[in-house]
Amino acid sequence: MVLVNGIATEALGVRDRGLHYGDGLFETLAVSQGRPLCWDPHMARLLAGCERLRLPCPDADGLRKEAREACAALPLGVLKILITRGAGGRGYRPPREPVPTRIVMTRPWPPYPPGNTETGVTVIICQTRLGTNPGLAGLKHLNRLEQVLARSEWDDPGIAEGLMLDATGRVVEGTMTNLFMLSRGRLLTPALDEAGVAGVMRRLILETAPDLGLPATECSLNLRDLNAADELFLSNSLVGVWPVRELAGRAFKVGPVARRLRQELGSRGYLATTAAMDKRSSG
Amino acid sequence: MVLVNGIATEALGVRDRGLHYGDGLFETLAVSQGRPLCWDPHMARLLAGCERLRLPCPDADGLRKEAREACAALPLGVLKILITRGAGGRGYRPPREPVPTRIVMTRPWPPYPPGNTETGVTVIICQTRLGTNPGLAGLKHLNRLEQVLARSEWDDPGIAEGLMLDATGRVVEGTMTNLFMLSRGRLLTPALDEAGVAGVMRRLILETAPDLGLPATECSLNLRDLNAADELFLSNSLVGVWPVRELAGRAFKVGPVARRLRQELGSRGYLATTAAMDKRSSG
Repeated sequence: MVLVNGIATEALGVRDRGLHYGDGLFETLAVSQGRPLCWDPHMARLLAGCERLRLPCPDADGLRKEAREACAALPLGVLKILITRGAGGRGYRPPREPVPTRIVMTRPWPPYPPGNTETGVTVIICQTRLGTNPGLAGLKHLNRLEQVLARSEWDDPGIAEGLMLDATGRVVEGTMTNLFMLSRGRLLTPALDEAGVAGVMRRLILETAPDLGLPATECSLNLRDLNAADELFLSNSLVGVWPVRELAGRAFKVGPVARRLRQELGSRGYLATTAAMDKRSSG
Repeated sequence: MVLVNGIATEALGVRDRGLHYGDGLFETLAVSQGRPLCWDPHMARLLAGCERLRLPCPDADGLRKEAREACAALPLGVLKILITRGAGGRGYRPPREPVPTRIVMTRPWPPYPPGNTETGVTVIICQTRLGTNPGLAGLKHLNRLEQVLARSEWDDPGIAEGLMLDATGRVVEGTMTNLFMLSRGRLLTPALDEAGVAGVMRRLILETAPDLGLPATECSLNLRDLNAADELFLSNSLVGVWPVRELAGRAFKVGPVARRLRQELGSRGYLATTAAMDKRSSG
């Protein structure tokens, strides 16, 4: 189902700045039993992003209503919300009073191999680097060609994700996930002040970890730092937590911390239910 | 007029990867007396960009026919062509056999102050920096949020353009133009191997300058280099050549080289006719 500004349609105005410039933001939410998960933190990120790009914030109640309508019949799936600056302006120059476009659409749950969560995933290092830009860093904006190029680098279904570095060799994130490493009882994740997407699941992990006795810190990490990890794992709103069992040919322990974190995130209602996912995988 | 895959419509499919990821390219051409100008070099750039992004190239003859149809009734205007990877794929991963979307649309000529060409323009230095990415550098792709942010930095109609640097302070280009400097009888322009758009007018200037006895070179330039310029000017397919009379508060000579170049570009048929522009400005 697709709603564009509240109307069921598959058509977008061809002059939309979302198309011409990627002038907008998006959110990707897991849907379980007809409900989008982690609604509040997703909305918080969307509204913060609108402020940074000086996009008028969508009405949160109206958006919630549309999201519920789109998800109602979906036992397990994905909800994508896009907010663009609409049409208008002169070239790159935004219109003085933009009328944003609001797109609410659902998709089937991606066919992730069910073993990823338990036995871990194989990850490569992408050749494609992420450009740095403090003004855009952290935002889930619509300029995603770097991710498209990076994801085009491999075709092997045995590789679940590719890690992206910036031009100076700092680790930033996966093409569609954030990265965490466990080091001496502490959780570390790349700081995203110059590049990367500040994932909602990443934020929820940073908030949840201290409750499990795990201090969690954002910092600068390079590949050598990762080699010293006790555990490595990836996160996003759909997959929850994927332990990394192999990165660039090097083996890592699929350890207890990723599992404990995932259980805690699940018990807080942040993850699409294992039950629904198992049902889908076996059916 | 808008043609989407050859059909007159204002509607684009809402699942298009051009919207979701900026996964595509565009061209902006001047239209004069019903004809798009510099068609061949624009097509050469578009096809080269398609190869770099591994987009199927559009049929050049079919595209030309659509462009002529869209421009036929336009004495002076702008033709924009967009090629996206269409719908499909899984997330960032492109579809194995993409079916591109082809958009051909016209716009009125922008109301540039007619004095810009003769008396020069005032330019600022943008705070927004350009991220570097050799895989995307030079391409006129649809990820243009950096330009949107940069163009949002000023509102003063007396400022015609903003110059953008990369994170290390190298000068790259204007938000919508390329930059040239004249130094000791040589023409220099920033190399675009890490960031920037390789403009068609930039290429035509690099090809034309030697015929006027001006050696032309791509190189690394910083702001201190620009301060030593004998002349500075901006270029794109619509404005042709705009001399810079002031950059970040520093005055520059509106000199004879920019004028000579512009005359030569005009005589080769690369620029929208002065006659048509003067008519528009006075009428």
